[in-house]
Amino acid sequence: MNVLVVLGHPEPKSFNAALAATAKRVFEAQGHTVRISDLYAQDFKSEVTRGDFKNQRDPEMLNIIREQGNAWKTGGFADEIKREIDHIAWADLVIVQCPIWWFGLPAIVKGWMDRVFVPGFTYGRGKWYETGGLAGKRAMMSVTFDAKASAYTARGRYGDSDIMLWPIHTSLRFVGFDVLRPFIADQVSGSADARAKSLAAFEARLKAIGSETPMPFHTLDEFDEDDMLKPGVKGRTAGQRD
Amino acid sequence: MNVLVVLGHPEPKSFNAALAATAKRVFEAQGHTVRISDLYAQDFKSEVTRGDFKNQRDPEMLNIIREQGNAWKTGGFADEIKREIDHIAWADLVIVQCPIWWFGLPAIVKGWMDRVFVPGFTYGRGKWYETGGLAGKRAMMSVTFDAKASAYTARGRYGDSDIMLWPIHTSLRFVGFDVLRPFIADQVSGSADARAKSLAAFEARLKAIGSETPMPFHTLDEFDEDDMLKPGVKGRTAGQRD
Repeated sequence: MNVLVVLGHPEPKSFNAALAATAKRVFEAQGHTVRISDLYAQDFKSEVTRGDFKNQRDPEMLNIIREQGNAWKTGGFADEIKREIDHIAWADLVIVQCPIWWFGLPAIVKGWMDRVFVPGFTYGRGKWYETGGLAGKRAMMSVTFDAKASAYTARGRYGDSDIMLWPIHTSLRFVGFDVLRPFIADQVSGSADARAKSLAAFEARLKAIGSETPMPFHTLDEFDEDDMLKPGVKGRTAGQRD
Repeated sequence: MNVLVVLGHPEPKSFNAALAATAKRVFEAQGHTVRISDLYAQDFKSEVTRGDFKNQRDPEMLNIIREQGNAWKTGGFADEIKREIDHIAWADLVIVQCPIWWFGLPAIVKGWMDRVFVPGFTYGRGKWYETGGLAGKRAMMSVTFDAKASAYTARGRYGDSDIMLWPIHTSLRFVGFDVLRPFIADQVSGSADARAKSLAAFEARLKAIGSETPMPFHTLDEFDEDDMLKPGVKGRTAGQRD
């Protein structure tokens, strides 16, 4: 199995870096091949700009989707985007390792999605969700929360973690990934003991990841032409609820 | 009233730029003062890095929260962060104008939150939510979706827009903002007519914004020491649901 770990933390001595290193060690011990794409270490730029494209199709007006589509067809992406596309194309499993900041992805990780999940490669011409460009690959969010687990429940202060992560998970599904349940390390600044327990739990989880069942998402045929669930289909995700 | 419009789109001729210009025109016609913080135009950097701090408290290990707190106390922020802090401090109303990409904020806007919503200024020492550093100010997300409105409902393909926007709204509330209902322009690439209708609806909305009631959030006294809603308190946000 080819495993890509996308790491989004600026500090090489961070707990997030330790989680990424754990993934590398565990998977390599199982005979898998691991690449870590350390976004900060490679000075990955977060913003979609004209610089993403070697040749701009329309120099007058930046239509991002069209330029991304054109760059995909013509091999016109900036080198750092091409490199990330190649990593994803190579991977059977993608683990995104990052802290949750302001209840979402750090900007550098969001920028990785904004710039790399491009039409042609990940979706388009009727290919999305279970027929998306990345169908057959698996993805997992591995995130750190700096609060207690109870705060991220349906009655917790920050709400249900499935709702918090819905925008990320539905993005991963949009492009075709089978999305595994997130790994959540809580109270990471709390104590060395809490961190050690999280690392051990992560290791145990990864060792058995081959037998995991992905999270449920609705399939294309469950929606009508208004992009609504057909009558009788019960909403069964964090985003679609009855 | 002092109004800050934070704009996060790379194309000056974009529909998002037109929405920001509309806000400026409408508010100025009412005698308000408007600043537009155009993040792309000012080449705002998205990533939290060591460069955010003029002097690093601990050069060995980047603990972001501690460095941000220290920079707040010592006036040690990089100039572009200081400038955004001053804009927010000046504003009575903050409108964040951006497209929704991958069901969330463009990286440059997320980076604005990651780098500018710093402890001391926006929260800390028991100040958060209704006692947060930005309490008394109002904020509104004004976003564009490139799909039909039905797709962003509880039974829609992308799920309830309140759930999609929950991570953003709860962040705004965390720092003390009274959060107004989002303004959502859908199908923006659909037709010039749809865009004209959205601009008119935005203008009408802004003209009456003074009389709007903010979205409901739970108050600090509704949570127990485990960060859970106390028994008998009914969850009434997108994140907290019973």
